Order: sequence, then structure tokens, then C-alpha cells
Amino acid sequence: MYNFDYYIPTKIFFGKGVLDKLPGEIALHTSKVLLVYGGGSIRRNGIYDALLPLLAQAGIEVCELSGVEPNPRVTTVARGAQLCRDNGVGAVLAVGGGSVIDCSKVIAAAALSAGDPWDLVTGKAPITAALPIFTVLTAAATGSEMNNGAVISNMETHDKLGIKSPAMQPVASVLDPTYTFTTSRHQTAAGTADIMSHTLENYFSRAADFTLLDGMAEAILKTCIQYGPVALKTPDHYEARANLMWASSLAINGLIRWGKADAWSVHSMEHPLSAYYDITHGDGLAVLTPSWMTHVLSEATLDRFVRYGVQVWGVDPALDKWEIARRSIDITRDFFTRVLGIPGSLRALGIDETHLEEMAQKASTPALQKDAFVPLFPTDVLAIYRRCLD
Amino acid sequence: MYNFDYYIPTKIFFGKGVLDKLPGEIALHTSKVLLVYGGGSIRRNGIYDALLPLLAQAGIEVCELSGVEPNPRVTTVARGAQLCRDNGVGAVLAVGGGSVIDCSKVIAAAALSAGDPWDLVTGKAPITAALPIFTVLTAAATGSEMNNGAVISNMETHDKLGIKSPAMQPVASVLDPTYTFTTSRHQTAAGTADIMSHTLENYFSRAADFTLLDGMAEAILKTCIQYGPVALKTPDHYEARANLMWASSLAINGLIRWGKADAWSVHSMEHPLSAYYDITHGDGLAVLTPSWMTHVLSEATLDRFVRYGVQVWGVDPALDKWEIARRSIDITRDFFTRVLGIPGSLRALGIDETHLEEMAQKASTPALQKDAFVPLFPTDVLAIYRRCLD
Repeated sequence: MYNFDYYIPTKIFFGKGVLDKLPGEIALHTSKVLLVYGGGSIRRNGIYDALLPLLAQAGIEVCELSGVEPNPRVTTVARGAQLCRDNGVGAVLAVGGGSVIDCSKVIAAAALSAGDPWDLVTGKAPITAALPIFTVLTAAATGSEMNNGAVISNMETHDKLGIKSPAMQPVASVLDPTYTFTTSRHQTAAGTADIMSHTLENYFSRAADFTLLDGMAEAILKTCIQYGPVALKTPDHYEARANLMWASSLAINGLIRWGKADAWSVHSMEHPLSAYYDITHGDGLAVLTPSWMTHVLSEATLDRFVRYGVQVWGVDPALDKWEIARRSIDITRDFFTRVLGIPGSLRALGIDETHLEEMAQKASTPALQKDAFVPLFPTDVLAIYRRCLD
Repeated sequence: MYNFDYYIPTKIFFGKGVLDKLPGEIALHTSKVLLVYGGGSIRRNGIYDALLPLLAQAGIEVCELSGVEPNPRVTTVARGAQLCRDNGVGAVLAVGGGSVIDCSKVIAAAALSAGDPWDLVTGKAPITAALPIFTVLTAAATGSEMNNGAVISNMETHDKLGIKSPAMQPVASVLDPTYTFTTSRHQTAAGTADIMSHTLENYFSRAADFTLLDGMAEAILKTCIQYGPVALKTPDHYEARANLMWASSLAINGLIRWGKADAWSVHSMEHPLSAYYDITHGDGLAVLTPSWMTHVLSEATLDRFVRYGVQVWGVDPALDKWEIARRSIDITRDFFTRVLGIPGSLRALGIDETHLEEMAQKASTPALQKDAFVPLFPTDVLAIYRRCLD
């Protein structure tokens, strides 16, 4: 187990009908927000109509930026930052899923920076300050509502890069599970896969001596396994949506990561797929995960797979260790494809051989070659891509 | 599942040799602290000698209050508050276990209050402000290092009361597992029982639909079951001490409580025992817990006990439900007494029939009669006390 600093200062308002707690928090910081959202679902599902009067009552003026893309573009960040500067905005309020929140975070930083927003994403210019960020979550998936990270895409350079800064930690987030009742079947499935992937990236770690965190991770995984299918079948099942929503935050707010802290293998391999093909992040993760598992299974990693199979999937611990490990991988694949209904191959996501080698080069970062659970070089990534091509 | 607000702004520095991160944090708030500790073990184990130069280097002047009792007294709180006022202290630094931290929290509040400190504990005078609080933890048990609660005793009135206030949330805490290598065998056992009790108070809840939190609670319980005995056998086992230390914080920082929020039955019954007999809190909890379980087991609560037995203790799920429940209680008792070596009866803790009825009256608060997992009236508490007398 590694030393770690733990600090999660985001205030969470969780539950039915808690939206009215937010405007007072915002009013402590500003009287003018940039309201950021996506394709307009918040206008159809009533959140927009509920929120605007509450903000007005709290004396908060609103500018709007709509149309944030599923893989948010740096061009949209630039547009939002300009709106903030032009209108003297004092905070950014994201209403949406991870894409909207990620975009809003970098807008909040770029609003206080004179340079090119892409420099903030690449790390060329450090993010040292940002406008206060508030979020209203409408999809359980990325956990962006409770951490200080963001992922932004540049479609010109085919880059999809993650960036973190304490300045981008949301001040407060509203998590009302009823807001996810209208999340589509596809997004519910992909979101569940995303939560599981965040958890697995921490669970498959070289630091196997922090068993408390392993247990926490298993709790999140079992929650997804139990409630993902329930939410697909009964979209307005409150307990299912609430458990998934809180799982999404806890999977990636630091709770199960700090003390372990390996490089994230499957995310590193998925980002090029989204950057080249604009696929749904969770779909890419679901396709890659079982093939990655097969690739890294070895004598050295066997015990971790055995714990995974027995604790998470209930595989019979009396079986041969290799049999447990292989079964756990098969069950994982089956859960993503058959139970959640996510396509099972890259080709089914519209990806062919064309860019595999370039994408493998981009995926195999120095961190992945050095700090991953099992180091992955471009040849490894290419082998994994090829394994899940069809 | 209930709605909840989640907010844990304490910064944690966790790991070996991280003490040097603390003085800089303190210096952001003040240049003069009250250093609070207990019977002087921090002078013997080297923490005192390591800390003082670090504080001096950061330009922080130190006043001292030593001799805080295991069940900290309101008289000690008063003495500490007076020291703060007399010396113009700007923050309180607790170095110790839960008693020292609890005492420090109320000192920090009382320092800013003109009235009787006991009024702050009883709630007669609300706690609205406190000096900034910092902690260096030396025993894994109460979790006080990461929450805003404190328990203070008044030996004149035989009251041991809990009080909470956002103002008493520690700003930052150092959790170095090596500081618990010298924790005594008795305190290690009682601390482990305390962590388990905090977890069980949340786990046995009417809100059985927050399965994610149940899984988190199970992870904490299994960590205690795995590592409590290891720490007893090998006191300087880093992984054991580290897992227990972090379990102590997560068990009672809100993570597994918010969204459930019943009244705490066993703690309510233990507090009078400590207030009348000054026993170790964890010992009292360990004696009461299995008898409380037996008292509240019924058709209505059976399923919760079955989940507990199967998930936490690995009882065969194919057995009859009542058999699983009874076994889980027996195993719990056996773990506390035989494995951890905690006395198994009130009489072994020096408690006889004399005050049972008075203590039962004190334990059965309105909250316990209304909001407990199973409501407990004085006759219930008395029956539970009697059940574990011998």
C-alpha cells in the first residue's frame, strides 16, 4: 500500500427533490453563472424548468451554453470560456452527464486563463485556478461530479486527454436519482460499464495489500452487477438508480484509488478509440476489458483474478485457480454483452483495422509502460485491439 | 434509502512518515497551537520528539495540555479552553486516540464560548464555531479524526454524551499506521471491536435498500475480522495496522451512514456503562453487541441477520435462515471473546446489578425508542444488560 493524501471537499446533495439546496450554495460564490448542458434533454425532462426559477429566486443570473458533445471538444471549451469572460460570469453550473461536467470544468479553468484552452488539457499550461464549479448530475457513469478530473477531445489531432487539477473539484453537486429515470437504455448500459471499469482499473493493482479498498471495490462492482440490469428493465426503479448513481461517484472520487494508484490500462486504450471514432466511452471500455484481462492473466496475476472471480462473481473457490480466472473473464464478457447488451467487438462499434497501429502508439503512454498493473507496450495494445476486433 | 448530504472536508495524510505534511497546514491558520495529549505515551514512542521541531520549523508556538482521560471529562475540556483563552491560541492539535481528539474538539469549541462547556455537550448552548482542529492519530478505533462528533463524560452526573457540529470537523489529520505499532494488546482489541460496532450500527438498519453501503460496511467488517487478529499477534504488521486505521475512519465518517441514519442502539446502551464504571468503550460494545443481536432477532429482522452471516462470516447460505442468524451471533460473540480476548460479560468488566435499572433509563433515549433498528425501551435495555451480566 502506498502513502496517500485523501481530500474530497465536494458537497453532495443526494436524493429525491434536493435541487433546491443548490442555488443557496451557488449564491455564496456569485450572482451570475454559466449554465452548461448538452443536447437539450434537460429541457424535455423538466430539470431546466425546475432549475431556472430556483436560480432566479436566489438572485442568480444565467448565461447558457448548450450543445456540449458526448466526447466534449476543446472548441466547445473555448466557446464557453469566452462566454464567461464576455459576461462576467462568476461560476459554472453543469447540468448533465460526465461530458457536460468535464467540459464545464475546463471552461471554468479556461475562463481564468488567457492562453489556448488546449494547452491546459495537454498540461503545457498548468491549471492553477478556476471559477467555482457546480453540477447537477443526469447520468450515472463518469463520476466527474465528485472529482477534479476531466477528459477533453481534440478531433483535429485525434487526441482525447485527461487532465486533473484541485481547482476543478466541484464545490457542490446534486445527485437526484430520479433525474436518471429517462437515461436511455444504451447510456444506462454504457454508464454501468464505465463505473465497473473505473473500479476494475483500481482493483487490478500491484498494491494487493490494501484489502479494505478491495472490499470497497467489490461492493461497487456487485452493486453494478445487481442494479445495472434492474435499471435496464425498470428505468424508474429508484433503488437501482440511486445505488448506481452513488456507485458512479464512489468509483472514481479517490476512495478506492488512493493507496493503490497504478496507471489505468483500459482507459488508456479506450481514449484513442473515442478520439478516432467518437464512440461511446463505456462501450469501448466494455469491449476492451475482457480482452485486456485475457492478455494480462499470468502466473503473476493469477491470485488477483481468483479473488475477483470468487468475491465479485461468486465462482466456486474450490475450482482450479486457472479455471476460476478464465471463468471470471468469460462471465465479465457475458455480463457486458448479453446482460447489458453492449456490442461485443470493435467492429460492431464501427472500428476496423485502419488505425489500430496509430491508436496503439497513442495508447501506450510512458505511464502505461511503467506503472500499469501489467506494463503495456504498443505491441501489447495492438494485440489486445486485434483480439477484440471481431 | 433516505436523502442525505455528504460532506467530509477533512484532509487526510495517510502513510509512513507523513507527519511533516501537517505543520504547513496548521501554519495556514495560526502560529500558536494547544497541543493536547493523554497519559504521555507520545513522549515514549517518539511522536512528541518528532513533532515539536517540525512545529518550530513552521513557526508555530506550542502550549500543552496533557493527561486527557480515556473517557474524557468535561472538567478537562474546561481546563483546555481556559488555556486557549489565556494564551491566545489559534488552533488545537490533538495527538492521541479518540478520547484525546474528542476532548480537543470540544476544547476548540469551548475556547470560543463564554459559558459552561457542559452546556455545549448537552446541547443547551449550540456549537456554532470552534478553533481549527488538527489531529495525529495513535489508535485505530473511534474515527474521531475524520468526523465532527465528540463524546464527553461528566462523572458527577454519570452522563456520557455525544455531540456533533460542523465546526468541530478536523481540518487535517495525520494517519501514520506505524504510530499504532505500540498500541497495547487490550486497546488494539477494544479498538477493533469499536470499529466493528460503528459499522454494525449502520449495517443493522431499517433502510435495507442501500445495498452499496451494505457492501462497504461488509468490507470494513471483513477487514477487522482479517486484520484485528494479525495486529494482536504481530503488533508491527504494517498492512494490518494500515487497514485497521483506515477502516476506523471510514466506519464513522458518514460514508456508510448517510442514506440510512437510524439511532445507534449499542452505543446508546454502552455510554451509561462507561459513565458509571469508566470502562473501555470498545469492551462495553463487544459485551453488549451479541446480546443486543439476540434481543432484536425476529421474523422482521431475520433477513438482515442472514445477509450478515453469509456475507460477513461466510456462513453456508444453504442452511435454514434461523440457523444462519443464530450462528452469525454466536460467531460474533466468539470473535470478540476468544479471538480478540475481550471479557465476555459485564461482571468481568466490573459491573454488577447495582445500577442496571438507572443505566437502562439513561440508555433508552427518545431516539432509541423511535428511530432504532428495533426500538428499545428501558425494559428492553434492562433485559439486554441482564442477558450479558454473566
